[in-house]
Amino acid sequence: MKKVFFTPGPAELFPTVEQHYKDAFDQQLGSISHRSQRFRDIYKHTSEQLKTLMNIPESSGIFFTSSANEIWERILQNTVEHESFHLVNGSFSKKFYDFSSELHKYAHKFEKPFGEGFDYSEIIVPEYAELICTTANETASGVQMRPSEIHKTKRGNKDKLVCVDTVSSAPYPDLDMALIDSAFFSVQKSFGMPAGLGVWIAAPSLLEKAERMKTHEGNVGTYHSLPTLWKNFEKFETPETPNVMAIYVLGKVAEDMNKIGIDVIRKETEKKAKVLYDFAEKCDFLDIFVKNPDHRSQTVIVIDVKEKNAADIIKKVQADVNMVIGSGYGDFKATQLRIANFAAVNMEQVETLIEAIKRV
Amino acid sequence: MKKVFFTPGPAELFPTVEQHYKDAFDQQLGSISHRSQRFRDIYKHTSEQLKTLMNIPESSGIFFTSSANEIWERILQNTVEHESFHLVNGSFSKKFYDFSSELHKYAHKFEKPFGEGFDYSEIIVPEYAELICTTANETASGVQMRPSEIHKTKRGNKDKLVCVDTVSSAPYPDLDMALIDSAFFSVQKSFGMPAGLGVWIAAPSLLEKAERMKTHEGNVGTYHSLPTLWKNFEKFETPETPNVMAIYVLGKVAEDMNKIGIDVIRKETEKKAKVLYDFAEKCDFLDIFVKNPDHRSQTVIVIDVKEKNAADIIKKVQADVNMVIGSGYGDFKATQLRIANFAAVNMEQVETLIEAIKRV
Repeated sequence: MKKVFFTPGPAELFPTVEQHYKDAFDQQLGSISHRSQRFRDIYKHTSEQLKTLMNIPESSGIFFTSSANEIWERILQNTVEHESFHLVNGSFSKKFYDFSSELHKYAHKFEKPFGEGFDYSEIIVPEYAELICTTANETASGVQMRPSEIHKTKRGNKDKLVCVDTVSSAPYPDLDMALIDSAFFSVQKSFGMPAGLGVWIAAPSLLEKAERMKTHEGNVGTYHSLPTLWKNFEKFETPETPNVMAIYVLGKVAEDMNKIGIDVIRKETEKKAKVLYDFAEKCDFLDIFVKNPDHRSQTVIVIDVKEKNAADIIKKVQADVNMVIGSGYGDFKATQLRIANFAAVNMEQVETLIEAIKRV
Repeated sequence: MKKVFFTPGPAELFPTVEQHYKDAFDQQLGSISHRSQRFRDIYKHTSEQLKTLMNIPESSGIFFTSSANEIWERILQNTVEHESFHLVNGSFSKKFYDFSSELHKYAHKFEKPFGEGFDYSEIIVPEYAELICTTANETASGVQMRPSEIHKTKRGNKDKLVCVDTVSSAPYPDLDMALIDSAFFSVQKSFGMPAGLGVWIAAPSLLEKAERMKTHEGNVGTYHSLPTLWKNFEKFETPETPNVMAIYVLGKVAEDMNKIGIDVIRKETEKKAKVLYDFAEKCDFLDIFVKNPDHRSQTVIVIDVKEKNAADIIKKVQADVNMVIGSGYGDFKATQLRIANFAAVNMEQVETLIEAIKRV
């Protein structure tokens, strides 16, 4: 019997993924040229399905990288001449901030303790910051930044670019993609695919900035500079030979999700999240980690473990029902559980998981 | 019936690849953590199998990127403070050279016309070049640089780093990996896998250089800087969530190749190349493109088409025996054929292909 993964990434595969990979092999997509019409059709299909699913404007570009780590690097390289600004409240938003310094930019941050989130009213953006980096869902701490707060941040800073790390949340957050300048994710989280593909959505505002930097002798990289990516995207090609299979499968998964409907997926996500949070609140030996309900992630539920040992719970649940819960991140490994609530797991599985935790 | 791909990349899949992917799904490798012992075991296995197959010293690091394009960028970023030197004789070696300028380095080149190759005796390396960039096989023109000439280049320039682009040749060229400083390839060529993984082999000499550059405030990148990759490699981890499935399958393919034996693979490659070149020489409407026999690639056979139309030959052969021949690169599309001679195709298939070309 196969395990069910409630880990926050890599995570449970979306139910159709293995079949889509099989189809890709049947169609010999591992051997086709990335300069062929067949590939251009695949790229176009994936781009269209994502645009429908996430309500992305026609004018935006969709680019494929190897990971979200790569996108952190590329977006800083291509849009920040001098200064970036980061909302930091966990290991991943901190890493994005660190990348900026490593690239010899001046990185500002507004930092909050692990488990706390951001509202627009308290954010003061440094005057010369060119890019504001927000995180829709901190995978490490299970804290979300609500789309409304991200939107206000952009509206209050129209002269600056705003990007949203949606790694462990997309396509759940209902972001106004015509307002924000960029969003990105990797496929091994909410899209339920094997890792190895990052997806970067960018408005023309980003391209303009990158072109301007290039003109002023800025180093925007090589094959994955935004101008090069965009030029290739216009003909649905990629600069390098890309992960063709994953691009194909992502298009198919997005198509499956469009058939279900993004509203249904969002409602289901919220229903499952509510069941999990309610359980954690009522259970004797558990507690919700994120205190402010507005900041509680809908896609990664982080739970404090009291009295019992977190590793012991994980072990016993796996032995009982063959379900894998994620451990707490870093220093919280011994005292927290992280339960991914992505589209790949359904309510029935969530209920089975809860019953198993109760039996521990 | 499935096609057989004689295209030089993406190419025909190695016969065991699809089954290895199936096994990876059965083992749920798409859902495992890249910080788990299971992943570390996979990385270690792949590293060991490649080290055996290509006779790579124990002290070398093996790193995974998304493509060879990425490795061009990373190696320049991490080892060239000011000046690089490139042997350019085709589109891919030219691109490597271009990357250096794009990264604001001073790039020197020794350029030869398309179809010609390099011998050590004629190479004059600029005094201040830090990295010498050679290409074992120009995929565009079907020209090889023999290992003996690459070795002499390193022996004659011991104070400089020498790297070898083995994208469409590895594991065929019998390189002295204890002598040269770095080699790299992507898996969709000779290893017969779907694209999406680059493999970078680096000696400690590269790490020393990168560390020195970093100390002197050099920008060596972020998550894929050589120091970061190496630190992770020491525990068989990767900085980001990598393409776990492809890393697993590459280890399995390398294991399969080790079972066949690298000597057998090399001899088979040479036998098939000889049959193809002999045929091109004798055939009325074909000719060998690369005039100097020493410079003729063993893995990508480039053939001039006389009188007939190249596209027509490709079309008719596919209709006849369902085999796909590669077209000439760029300007040579109308007048050349490129036939990949990787380990995934056997002598019987080569003979079937030749008979079909004869029938055109």
